[in-house]
Amino acid sequence: MVCLGRICPDMLINGPIDANPYSIRLNSDGRTDAVAAISAQPPESFSASLLRSLLLRSLLQSDTFDESCESGEMENENETNTEPVEAEVNPWEVSGKIDYDKLIDKFGCQRLDQSLIDRVHRLTSRPPHVFLRRGVFFAHRDLNEILDAYERGDKFYLYTGRGPSSEALHLGHLVPFMFTKYLQDAFKVPLVIQLTDDEKCMWKNLSVEESQRLARENAKDIIACGFDITRTFIFSDFDYVGGAFYKNMVKVSKCVTYNKVVGIFGFTGEDHIGKVSFPPVQAVPSFPSSFPHLFSGKENLRCLIPCAIDQDPYFRMTRDVAPRIGYHKPALIESSFFPALQGDTGKMSASDPNSAIYVTDTPKEIKDKINKYAFTGGQDTKEKQRLYGANLEVDIPVKYLSFFLDDDDELEYIKQEYGSGRMLTFDVKKRLIDLLTELVERHKRARATVTEEMVDAFMAARPLPSMFS
Amino acid sequence: MVCLGRICPDMLINGPIDANPYSIRLNSDGRTDAVAAISAQPPESFSASLLRSLLLRSLLQSDTFDESCESGEMENENETNTEPVEAEVNPWEVSGKIDYDKLIDKFGCQRLDQSLIDRVHRLTSRPPHVFLRRGVFFAHRDLNEILDAYERGDKFYLYTGRGPSSEALHLGHLVPFMFTKYLQDAFKVPLVIQLTDDEKCMWKNLSVEESQRLARENAKDIIACGFDITRTFIFSDFDYVGGAFYKNMVKVSKCVTYNKVVGIFGFTGEDHIGKVSFPPVQAVPSFPSSFPHLFSGKENLRCLIPCAIDQDPYFRMTRDVAPRIGYHKPALIESSFFPALQGDTGKMSASDPNSAIYVTDTPKEIKDKINKYAFTGGQDTKEKQRLYGANLEVDIPVKYLSFFLDDDDELEYIKQEYGSGRMLTFDVKKRLIDLLTELVERHKRARATVTEEMVDAFMAARPLPSMFS
Repeated sequence: MVCLGRICPDMLINGPIDANPYSIRLNSDGRTDAVAAISAQPPESFSASLLRSLLLRSLLQSDTFDESCESGEMENENETNTEPVEAEVNPWEVSGKIDYDKLIDKFGCQRLDQSLIDRVHRLTSRPPHVFLRRGVFFAHRDLNEILDAYERGDKFYLYTGRGPSSEALHLGHLVPFMFTKYLQDAFKVPLVIQLTDDEKCMWKNLSVEESQRLARENAKDIIACGFDITRTFIFSDFDYVGGAFYKNMVKVSKCVTYNKVVGIFGFTGEDHIGKVSFPPVQAVPSFPSSFPHLFSGKENLRCLIPCAIDQDPYFRMTRDVAPRIGYHKPALIESSFFPALQGDTGKMSASDPNSAIYVTDTPKEIKDKINKYAFTGGQDTKEKQRLYGANLEVDIPVKYLSFFLDDDDELEYIKQEYGSGRMLTFDVKKRLIDLLTELVERHKRARATVTEEMVDAFMAARPLPSMFS
Repeated sequence: MVCLGRICPDMLINGPIDANPYSIRLNSDGRTDAVAAISAQPPESFSASLLRSLLLRSLLQSDTFDESCESGEMENENETNTEPVEAEVNPWEVSGKIDYDKLIDKFGCQRLDQSLIDRVHRLTSRPPHVFLRRGVFFAHRDLNEILDAYERGDKFYLYTGRGPSSEALHLGHLVPFMFTKYLQDAFKVPLVIQLTDDEKCMWKNLSVEESQRLARENAKDIIACGFDITRTFIFSDFDYVGGAFYKNMVKVSKCVTYNKVVGIFGFTGEDHIGKVSFPPVQAVPSFPSSFPHLFSGKENLRCLIPCAIDQDPYFRMTRDVAPRIGYHKPALIESSFFPALQGDTGKMSASDPNSAIYVTDTPKEIKDKINKYAFTGGQDTKEKQRLYGANLEVDIPVKYLSFFLDDDDELEYIKQEYGSGRMLTFDVKKRLIDLLTELVERHKRARATVTEEMVDAFMAARPLPSMFS
């Protein structure tokens, strides 16, 4: 599975056995920890033990359910352990299929249904982004309230972020930024992007200097996504924590007990206190008063956070605290995870750069990775393929095309032809190679134009006078 | 006992029964929580249960001793509980006598002996401060190393602080600042003073604004102690946390586990994470790189911290971490506690302003408080006093004179005459009233001259070009 945000989605699927959802990050290299093998649109089958873990973690996050969790849920452990285990989750290896419908139920967020997508279409007067049409962003919290307010003429601001733990981003990392750029353009609203170099310094045991360097390198990739400098403030925590932002951190910290963060994030007593201190740092960009140079006098502005659903625990905590300190709850629009090349059932490997396409890959690397490693639902031989067709549910080239091929008709055509056996795996892979090579090359060209001065300009704490116009 | 620093000394004497040493601050008003009834120079008798608590807390702070603590020390609980309990400690009431010799052993600091005092005398070419001569500052860590370096021509800087939880300071609050001013003048070194408004906002549940207001009011009292503006930087955490300071906070946080802070500070799972996050905030002013506007290029400068010994746990943690992140361990010079008017065995009352002399008290209030409330070792009647003399060991007027009467000969004369019965309690109290009235009136006059502009000037993050000359 792919980390579209800052904390790995393994926090969602680690059960109480592995009490520290961050260990995956501490023990893997900077590139591949965020790649996993979880389908974006998985079939209904779902590991019972995985579900139990999710349920348990979810229950732990609510004080109300603590009792039932301790008495009822825990007692069944031996029973459920005897069920067939489809998903394997440990700090260095993740495989399994997430049922996003069940995830929505457990987390208590809402499905982003067609009527909301239609409403976005109507309000923005532009076609919904491919990630909306294809269900990549599939869940939300209070998006309807944001749209209600927008319809009344009230604006909002966007907040997203990245944990800069690696030099190069892969395609999964680009997903939230591509979508956020669409939201910014469609709604004409300001955007703050948090680079959690402090978090990566603590979790990945990087030096302060290395974390800051990676933050700046990642900022270039983010800027290359095409954000509007007149509406966008990118900041690194090491640069920006302080003042109004720090005051909000203290306000949030006062409202969250240690037991609560243990329930949400699974920290143990042997974890360092930097981990315990961090959740408020990611919480407070949800509050406009953390950015006085942008939102002074607009403390009532609402915040919409596009992120992967693995970030939901942070913002559940934030939404719990917000009204107690006089702030709006931030709204969320949440995505599923980008699958690894090896597919749903492939093993996640922390040290395998072949599990993802990076924005630095050459055309040859892209071609080789897809041809060699992309898990396919096609048949072994031409003959069998003609006869039986491909299993689209597990086919990674089709999944990747679903993310990045904007043309609905072409995608539908490929799925029909390939599924029925009239198209061969080679041809589908060829189409994907062409598409991703073009996407990556376009990104490289855009990134090459990003100067140090542009980074400084995006990261300067400055007013953005025309950010709503 | 009196909080000379930012965390109440009750953290020293709360045993494992009251696992949260901060609760005294959460539940008392802003003025009197810091006043207790522990002698500055107690007799040898020492509550065994109190000692056990101290020992246990001390052991908990060392990972090495965890095992012995859990097996050996804890098993004796019932036995020791049957011993007579002289000290009572709970979050709202403190009484008892601290044996500072034993405290030194348990904490692992060193006694500040005469040879060190003589050395300070020789190196500074001025008489040692009354607080050194009388043993108010009685313990240290690595003071000899600071003096070695100073003798070689290397300078150092001073760091002290205050938790701004109350409007007015009492005499006990002034003790570390009076002593720090002496050190600054004698060694001609720069000084940073931390006002932990963030801590008070979290522990006392004050608003951010109220904490900041109190910090500024307290800064006026601190400035009134006569600090040299060319060598002194006063900062509030809410203003100053960020940048290099925050980077050091993260570096420290990475090195301290939650179990460790529980062992040191006794936090529980129901404490909010602001408490867990705070120790690094108080730690990092020990490192010169936290003040780039002062010490850029002087990252090897040593730090000396004058404080009450209740602060020792913070700086034990800091000293443990320092070498792991490439910094010098800070040195410490530590004071005993200033006694409450009610004396060694008096009950500490969180809501009793009559337990301390405040720098805002009128001459009449000072006179009334001392006459009415100062616990005396003198006899009930003139006749008995002439016959038996006063018990100086428990006499608060004599103790207070020991803190503030600079004239050694006069103090010795009073102790001899009073102890032998030739002087009456009334006369000793009269001398104390005169002395404290003069001291308080002088402080009031000095404070009246402190303008908002002066506060701004002291609190501006600015270079201090002549801070070592």
